[in-house]
Amino acid sequence: MNGFVGFVISNIKEVMIKYGFQYLETPSFEYTESIGKFLPDKDRPGEGVFSFKDESKWISLRYDLTAPLARFVAKNFNEIPKPFKRYQLGTVWRNEKPGPGRYREFLQFDADYVGTKNLQADAELCVLISEILEKCGLDKADYTVKISSRKITSKLFEKIKINSKEQISTTLRALDKVDRLGWSEVTKLLGKGRKDKSGDYTKGANLNNDQIEIIEKALNSKNADSEDLIEIIKIFDAYNFKNYKFDPTVIRGLEYYTGPIFEVNLNFDVKNLKGQTIQFGSIGGGGRYDNLVSNFGNLDFPATGISIGLDRLVFALMQKKDFKLKALRPVIICVFDKNNTKKYVEILNKLRSSNIRSEIYSGEGNLKKQMEYANKIASPCVIFYGDDEIKKAEVKLRNLKTGDESSIKIENLVNEIKKLI
Amino acid sequence: MNGFVGFVISNIKEVMIKYGFQYLETPSFEYTESIGKFLPDKDRPGEGVFSFKDESKWISLRYDLTAPLARFVAKNFNEIPKPFKRYQLGTVWRNEKPGPGRYREFLQFDADYVGTKNLQADAELCVLISEILEKCGLDKADYTVKISSRKITSKLFEKIKINSKEQISTTLRALDKVDRLGWSEVTKLLGKGRKDKSGDYTKGANLNNDQIEIIEKALNSKNADSEDLIEIIKIFDAYNFKNYKFDPTVIRGLEYYTGPIFEVNLNFDVKNLKGQTIQFGSIGGGGRYDNLVSNFGNLDFPATGISIGLDRLVFALMQKKDFKLKALRPVIICVFDKNNTKKYVEILNKLRSSNIRSEIYSGEGNLKKQMEYANKIASPCVIFYGDDEIKKAEVKLRNLKTGDESSIKIENLVNEIKKLI
Repeated sequence: MNGFVGFVISNIKEVMIKYGFQYLETPSFEYTESIGKFLPDKDRPGEGVFSFKDESKWISLRYDLTAPLARFVAKNFNEIPKPFKRYQLGTVWRNEKPGPGRYREFLQFDADYVGTKNLQADAELCVLISEILEKCGLDKADYTVKISSRKITSKLFEKIKINSKEQISTTLRALDKVDRLGWSEVTKLLGKGRKDKSGDYTKGANLNNDQIEIIEKALNSKNADSEDLIEIIKIFDAYNFKNYKFDPTVIRGLEYYTGPIFEVNLNFDVKNLKGQTIQFGSIGGGGRYDNLVSNFGNLDFPATGISIGLDRLVFALMQKKDFKLKALRPVIICVFDKNNTKKYVEILNKLRSSNIRSEIYSGEGNLKKQMEYANKIASPCVIFYGDDEIKKAEVKLRNLKTGDESSIKIENLVNEIKKLI
Repeated sequence: MNGFVGFVISNIKEVMIKYGFQYLETPSFEYTESIGKFLPDKDRPGEGVFSFKDESKWISLRYDLTAPLARFVAKNFNEIPKPFKRYQLGTVWRNEKPGPGRYREFLQFDADYVGTKNLQADAELCVLISEILEKCGLDKADYTVKISSRKITSKLFEKIKINSKEQISTTLRALDKVDRLGWSEVTKLLGKGRKDKSGDYTKGANLNNDQIEIIEKALNSKNADSEDLIEIIKIFDAYNFKNYKFDPTVIRGLEYYTGPIFEVNLNFDVKNLKGQTIQFGSIGGGGRYDNLVSNFGNLDFPATGISIGLDRLVFALMQKKDFKLKALRPVIICVFDKNNTKKYVEILNKLRSSNIRSEIYSGEGNLKKQMEYANKIASPCVIFYGDDEIKKAEVKLRNLKTGDESSIKIENLVNEIKKLI
């Protein structure tokens, strides 16, 4: 698993650098008032952060990478280039009940453009996430970037006369759940409210049937008739980027989005640890948030960004059967006699200088224990280099997958092992 | 700076995989009683951790990567191979006063062998850290691995009849400060105590003059007359590893070491941010700790490990003048007319597919603003591709280091840019 995370991260870094993004690191925790109090949506961790009191001030571990970025930009607005293109890989923490696919500590990848309203930025975020996914081995058929715009829902809310912040927020959160709960359950959340299977009751948005019907109709529209989406689609054409789909049911729960929004969905089956196929949903998404940064310093910094949950992405990627990672485990050189260490090191240096993962057995066990160890770490093969072999300038090589053993001249060893791994 | 951290980390990963180590990640925080109460040394953060109460139990952010490893091994002793070779890169946190070169959040690299008394493990830790440093661009003259053994001090303490745990611990901590304070100040810490410049008083180990004299003499010894060191030096010879030095003044403050100890020192001048040459000290070190893991689960797991502070290492590496990192910043394609986006993307794709960092200007400014941006991010060159150039199938390329501008046929563009970056 960890080797795979490294593989995904190095693909991300390669693409992000090529696209001209700068890497940024921000602290894991800050004063709660600096990152916590501007959370615009109750769905976001509010109670859900890990916080502690240091001397007299409250400190919180970061729950996302966007708030720390907004704070960084507001603090360093004189020094940063405009637009500021940064990416970040970082652990975030949420103080929520852990569950399947829901961790309290997880790794996130974020890319953002800050300080531009140019929609090329939004378009390029969709292009770059596609390049990353394909670099990780996915085909175009394996994923779709769904796009919509917060302008569509805003116009819709205006039309059906929803004005209060709270009603808008409850409606958005309800609509964000269509994928998970289905439309008929969501109508309850749009109306008076809904009791879930566990008996918990969620208050609804109190819309009437007419309003709900208009929303339903709008969410079935196939036309991206929003100015910003028409513009983005033009830019997609210029990039010859085709792997997107307009989908007005893409809502994104966060209140702070102001323009185009996008979601990255995988199109292949994902199974949970019990082997059951699950509704996997999106691996991430994002959108334009032109007003968030101003919350941190009264500066006008339009911005757009994307956020991918790496643990979830890796979990899904690993299930594509055609994924093969090169064996990560080392070749073992067995130890018969410690006085021959110099001889073993000669073999070791030969392998390592050809970049073959290898080690001299570093425990204290006999040959049986050494073979147990080699099997336990799933080593591809072990090398026996006893006195007889040393005399003949050859080694015995045992392939641990097949059990085959053969004598190999030392000058041919590197090539023979390369065939096995 | 961040590009450099990435460069160091990828070198570490490459070497560690080649040496047959497995990557491990452990949680950033755990119940305080699980990682906090076995701290053997008062010099280690005791009060100095970040802790908070979650429901009724105290939780602490990790202050090193060794305690979480010991806990992991004790918990998973059935599943792990023996020996267990793992490396980890992770953030650790200390609740101490920040200061020059002293952060509250920093990145550590640890490599450990758990479950073996074989001194080849200790030797190989020294070899691998050398390979990493040289991969990062250091010469053999730039660093030394100093080695000693806790057995030497133990024997010495026996000889001069120091028995109490507290006296041993105070003496070790005092001796660990010879580098920083000099011998005459340390004699005060070995004796009655010492008042520092700020007026703070530190209680001493209460040794008498005879005892202190015997210690001083022992620390001047040039002979590694300890069984474990003789053995390690033999293994160094087998590896043809020469860049070590026996130095009995290497003490390591931690009480838990039981055998060979090592410290990695840089031999070149390091300057602080004010440009003053500073006593940089070691970038890390480690040693054998055969009894630590048993604290976590009553299991006998001899172990040895090394720990490097990456922020400090990077700080030092960046000062070697001969270090040059390839320019990380992108080539900028200027925007004259948004309707030509398709044309700009053609140039962009040409560059990116040759792995040249590049971007179409993604802000909204005029040409003057675009040049300001390019200069701000230290872009190597900008591309002008206006209507005239498009007609002639060429671009204007401006080198931002020299200010030179020239017309380049599009088919030659990639090669011309590669000359510049």
